[in-house]
Amino acid sequence: MIMDKLAEAVAARGPVCVGLDTAPEYLPPRFRAGFDDPAEAVFQFNRRIVDATADACACYKLQIAYYEALGLSGMRAYSRTLQYVRAQERLAIADVKRGDIAATAAMYASAHFSGDFEADFVTLSPYMGMDSVEPWLPWVREHEKGLFVLIRTSNPGAVDIQYLEEQSGERVYTQVARRVAALGLPLVGEHGFSSVGGVVGCTHAEDARELRALLPTMFFLVPGYGAQGGTARDTIPYFIRGNGAIVGASRSILLAWRNDTAHEEDWRAAHFEECAASEARRMRDNILGALGNMGV
Amino acid sequence: MIMDKLAEAVAARGPVCVGLDTAPEYLPPRFRAGFDDPAEAVFQFNRRIVDATADACACYKLQIAYYEALGLSGMRAYSRTLQYVRAQERLAIADVKRGDIAATAAMYASAHFSGDFEADFVTLSPYMGMDSVEPWLPWVREHEKGLFVLIRTSNPGAVDIQYLEEQSGERVYTQVARRVAALGLPLVGEHGFSSVGGVVGCTHAEDARELRALLPTMFFLVPGYGAQGGTARDTIPYFIRGNGAIVGASRSILLAWRNDTAHEEDWRAAHFEECAASEARRMRDNILGALGNMGV
Repeated sequence: MIMDKLAEAVAARGPVCVGLDTAPEYLPPRFRAGFDDPAEAVFQFNRRIVDATADACACYKLQIAYYEALGLSGMRAYSRTLQYVRAQERLAIADVKRGDIAATAAMYASAHFSGDFEADFVTLSPYMGMDSVEPWLPWVREHEKGLFVLIRTSNPGAVDIQYLEEQSGERVYTQVARRVAALGLPLVGEHGFSSVGGVVGCTHAEDARELRALLPTMFFLVPGYGAQGGTARDTIPYFIRGNGAIVGASRSILLAWRNDTAHEEDWRAAHFEECAASEARRMRDNILGALGNMGV
Repeated sequence: MIMDKLAEAVAARGPVCVGLDTAPEYLPPRFRAGFDDPAEAVFQFNRRIVDATADACACYKLQIAYYEALGLSGMRAYSRTLQYVRAQERLAIADVKRGDIAATAAMYASAHFSGDFEADFVTLSPYMGMDSVEPWLPWVREHEKGLFVLIRTSNPGAVDIQYLEEQSGERVYTQVARRVAALGLPLVGEHGFSSVGGVVGCTHAEDARELRALLPTMFFLVPGYGAQGGTARDTIPYFIRGNGAIVGASRSILLAWRNDTAHEEDWRAAHFEECAASEARRMRDNILGALGNMGV
């Protein structure tokens, strides 16, 4: 079960998930200027970020939108980055939020769990229903793959659907959480977590405690730390036994070189990955510190 | 407004939307055998389908999952197919069902409305809320692009979220429909339809009538005709003044050559596009016939 591997990575290296949501404008201009193709620059930037942060994070998440926006050469950079992460024996999450049914879902699963775009995990959007998640399950069972299904997000628009209260008084996202957990129950590994995980926003401590209590076997992917406003304390209720959650950050890590006012531009262009690694370690230590204080 | 162009295409050539959801195994084996690269075979197949059906349909829809499943060369076939369709002055819908917020949504919009993967329309999934749709609106306003947001689908799993009844007794999909229509209201063109459309399944005539009455300015994309079980009669309630809807079919058209028992395999491999065109015309005539009978 892939979720055992992720839990072991969290135990070994902490719960940070480095988001390789890399836009060309995030690169130091002097570094970027060394490449004709912006997508090649993105890949080379990613490679150095991965090398520098590999021991400070549990895994990597690639937001595919950033690569699709660079067209065909962007998709090549996406493929190469995935392959590079996995060649370093690190886990890669394809943040693709796909959601479709039947033959189409099967095509998506084959696309993102094999071939040029093979990742270890994908994110899914559940609006079409559980039959849009089910076609991915054979890959989880038979090919050591994992899912993170959108449950509750922290953007203002989350109220439009996720927070609607249905007749029983339960919110839509709670219903979704229950159904996703039910699908994942036969796929719980030896560390107690299902390989069918959930994506949950890192605001609302009360809601987080409620979700964790309701879903003791669900592994959570928590985006929104740092640049999106979440703090270490906000993430704590999602953990259980010091594990069971990864916390994503992207811009705060990729762009750490911009905040390094101690050095000149030339140094930062040459050593951007050191800034990223030190920010990833700082984030990891903050979360582990908060976890320790809370006695989770 | 792009939706005016689509309404004019429906008026001129009927409401069929040909789904280029092309898997290599849908190609006649003798045709496919002429290419080393399955993705190249897919593109050449698509090209001939487009040439043959251009006067029998309103537009084309590409389900991107089929291309992602072929990896990088699949993405090249996707890009070339989009470019080919648009070079023939036909409208192309990218069936990508993306749904993400803020910077990510802006990246997706740039990916699918410009550059290698430029389409005229995209499909979106609304689970994260209306702030996952809003970043696409500047493209609709300023670049003559259009959206189809998932409202209600016809798969069994639709009950899991879309059919939940909230406190007021209204279903989630009705709430979504209202909000999507509100976003699209400032984008209604001269033919009375907004460039922010909706995806609705082609079952449940009663629900269809209700949605059409609730959303008089919404243009509907109705998948599921043919291979997915819908009939011409099922689509009729979505039309208004004989327009305002396109009906998608893919396998029934792409695979029409398999059902042509009047000819030998060699002929079918050489003339598969004629089978597709005659199936598209038959579908168009069925729907137009049903529309005429119903006096819409």
